[in-house]
Amino acid sequence: MSAMNDLLAFQRQTEALSSIAERLGWDQETVMPRGAAEQRAEEMGAIESVLHERRTDPRIGEWLEAATPRTEAESRAIELIARDFNRANRVPARLATELARLTSLSQGIWAEARANEDAEEFLPTLDQVLMLKREEAAALAEGGDLYDALLDDYEPGMTGAEIASLFDAMRPRLVTLREDILGAGVQPQELTGHFPQETQLRLARTCATAFGYDWSRGRMDVAVHPFSSGRWQDSRITTRVVEPDPFNCLYSTIHEVGHSSYELGIDPDYAFTPLGRGVSMGVHESQSRIYENQMARGRAFTGWLFNRMSDAFDGLNITDADAFYATVNRVTPGFIRTEADEVQYNLHIMMRFDLERDLIAGRLDTRDLVEAWNSRFQKDFGVAVDRPANGVLQDVHWAIGLFGYFPTYALGNVYAGCLNAAMREDTPDLDDTLAQGDAAPGVEWLRENIHRHGGLLPPRQLVEEATEDDISPEPLLDYLEDKFSTIYKL
Amino acid sequence: MSAMNDLLAFQRQTEALSSIAERLGWDQETVMPRGAAEQRAEEMGAIESVLHERRTDPRIGEWLEAATPRTEAESRAIELIARDFNRANRVPARLATELARLTSLSQGIWAEARANEDAEEFLPTLDQVLMLKREEAAALAEGGDLYDALLDDYEPGMTGAEIASLFDAMRPRLVTLREDILGAGVQPQELTGHFPQETQLRLARTCATAFGYDWSRGRMDVAVHPFSSGRWQDSRITTRVVEPDPFNCLYSTIHEVGHSSYELGIDPDYAFTPLGRGVSMGVHESQSRIYENQMARGRAFTGWLFNRMSDAFDGLNITDADAFYATVNRVTPGFIRTEADEVQYNLHIMMRFDLERDLIAGRLDTRDLVEAWNSRFQKDFGVAVDRPANGVLQDVHWAIGLFGYFPTYALGNVYAGCLNAAMREDTPDLDDTLAQGDAAPGVEWLRENIHRHGGLLPPRQLVEEATEDDISPEPLLDYLEDKFSTIYKL
Repeated sequence: MSAMNDLLAFQRQTEALSSIAERLGWDQETVMPRGAAEQRAEEMGAIESVLHERRTDPRIGEWLEAATPRTEAESRAIELIARDFNRANRVPARLATELARLTSLSQGIWAEARANEDAEEFLPTLDQVLMLKREEAAALAEGGDLYDALLDDYEPGMTGAEIASLFDAMRPRLVTLREDILGAGVQPQELTGHFPQETQLRLARTCATAFGYDWSRGRMDVAVHPFSSGRWQDSRITTRVVEPDPFNCLYSTIHEVGHSSYELGIDPDYAFTPLGRGVSMGVHESQSRIYENQMARGRAFTGWLFNRMSDAFDGLNITDADAFYATVNRVTPGFIRTEADEVQYNLHIMMRFDLERDLIAGRLDTRDLVEAWNSRFQKDFGVAVDRPANGVLQDVHWAIGLFGYFPTYALGNVYAGCLNAAMREDTPDLDDTLAQGDAAPGVEWLRENIHRHGGLLPPRQLVEEATEDDISPEPLLDYLEDKFSTIYKL
Repeated sequence: MSAMNDLLAFQRQTEALSSIAERLGWDQETVMPRGAAEQRAEEMGAIESVLHERRTDPRIGEWLEAATPRTEAESRAIELIARDFNRANRVPARLATELARLTSLSQGIWAEARANEDAEEFLPTLDQVLMLKREEAAALAEGGDLYDALLDDYEPGMTGAEIASLFDAMRPRLVTLREDILGAGVQPQELTGHFPQETQLRLARTCATAFGYDWSRGRMDVAVHPFSSGRWQDSRITTRVVEPDPFNCLYSTIHEVGHSSYELGIDPDYAFTPLGRGVSMGVHESQSRIYENQMARGRAFTGWLFNRMSDAFDGLNITDADAFYATVNRVTPGFIRTEADEVQYNLHIMMRFDLERDLIAGRLDTRDLVEAWNSRFQKDFGVAVDRPANGVLQDVHWAIGLFGYFPTYALGNVYAGCLNAAMREDTPDLDDTLAQGDAAPGVEWLRENIHRHGGLLPPRQLVEEATEDDISPEPLLDYLEDKFSTIYKL
């Protein structure tokens, strides 16, 4: 018993320290004085170094060998601890340090290059990052596929080949739908007007409340890039305000509420254990997406939102709830992934997935990346990339070493499609309450079927048990075709 | 060289972790969701445990033996590290844990007893705390005086006997001054009116700016009990708003700016070393007090503040700057230390100092504490304590084990008196700029003579070098008699 208890007690403290590091990150992005950057870097370095030491502590290996789990949760905890311990030990300390140093540096170089619209400024650094990431992947893969080894960090159990075949199945229907929409005779109106910051933030709070955000265990602040941070009793959201576009603030908020609700909904018994967090990036994204899209961008909720916004902003240029629904779901050509609608978003991801898989496999050289990006974009979106910030420099991910991360966004959409189908069957009154500004039946269904399990079940099993079906892109594609055919009268 | 470098590198990380712990404390008191208390307790426990382990790490002992300092700063760093290491190692782990557990518990019991106005509810717990603190003091003192061993944690180098003789020298003149003031024929007017929160906070920011607070390395938030938190590039202040009494907000703010300015003014080379913080509680308090009292409660600055407040609140019931100066410095009878004016404050401290010295020495039993408090209060202030919250239950200090802390408040006033005399001689234009709402000459003098040194010089030496004189209560007493004789026309 003692090894099991020692291991869990040690892990408990590691989880607490890791939660502190995340809280510091929140502080940095929201309230930290602007002059404190160097100090904060040193503080983050110190706690990360303590965490790294703990994650590779040889005692973990001894405890793991001697530990006898007493429950299903303890078995799974052992599995997750062993997984992290093995991953941490496979990467040589020198490489981990070098990666940390380089990626913190390269983020600045990327930002500078993006501001200067000069991809050449960034590519040599990206090449160095890629070299180290391939080295890391080789250490992790132990002879297996390099990309899979990186992907496993974000979506455990998923492989690049599985994702490729999922994406191959999705692409034709998405491409067709996109073309039909952009070629449709009637296009939704754009929302225009003056939308003061304070009113947007007040409405954002109302929306968060509509989606059951627990304010006693969270708070909302403004950040440059919205994010959610923390778990258990303290998961905070951030939002941003773009004055001419209130949808940015409102839907970012609901998206982050989805992430935070997942963390806040986990069984409290799992707090400070490896089960006490969302199980994968894909499942996490499925929660933010199902809140933001399947629930908050549906006809029912937008009907309620139309009235709230009309009141709050003293009338809108759109005067009818059906037209407003179309406006919320407007599909327009664009270069930027984060601004993409439900239809085009996945096409952006597929392109990044193919490119990064080629980079990691050594099939694509960073010197050819701009050309590869631009020609692929032309092919998928029918438009030539006009400048690097709209092209290869638009995302920070690769600069900070996040290879294998992009596909989890689209995977989240696929999971959300599956979950939405099952959720709708089980909650026939959901649209009625959404039309009243209350997502409770959906939120409760997700808490029961997804949130509370935390890390207990592996991602695929979790979603398949919740939906009582295999994972498939069909529900998502059916949902998209159905929704957008109605809106665009296809 | 290697031992010295290893020691400093290790200490650097410890300082960074300790700074993180302080930032978490700030978070807890300002922005943390109310439902996150248990989680935060576990997080604080985890980082405190890491810190305790590091502070008692046997490698420190080895490094200290082998280290050869190369500079005056390194010699002092060695001295301070050795001091903390020895203190940490003298206290048995069992006792440290028990003290941490009990004092976190007893704070709640104290708060409950205070709310219930029932001292008996609290005294048995206080007795347990006292027992453990005496045990700790014995471990630290190694045969020396128990009270001195505790005091040394807050005011290194100072002894109870020295403080007693300092206080004995002060008491008669303070008692006489207090009686003269309360018996004076003319008493200052009270400020009355409506003072909206937002206006108070806006004025507080203006006051902080007047005292040179560096907003790029700090921020201001609202907390129940105002405090300052952090150092180097990030020292934040908090304030509170009591709507009928704007002085509370404004002078709390300036007080905390004093503390933060000290930390922000330390030589950046000392960051992440033991020299990178205020050298003692007494010196710290001297900075907050000299900002709040000798500068911000002087005739020059109150003249400027009178105009600002008259404008901000659309007129005051006091219509003349001299009368306003008297109002700011009003002396009225009262039970509460934290609400006391410059004259009576030190009398509150002296009484606590005598009582806690007797408690630690074993000359006073907690069962007799209420009687001892009340009779002493009657003697010093001429009034009978009406209820425990106005008497023995008013301060949290003893409940959380802070014996030996109280005298540093009065010591801060004494240091401030000394420093003010020297500062005024060196900055003949200070009152002119204060009258314009600008404390720069004073702030610069303090930065040059106190702040920048951080922990380089021991407290007494620091103040004596700054003033080119011995520490003495005379300058403070002269200043108080001079100021209040004028205001009260004595």
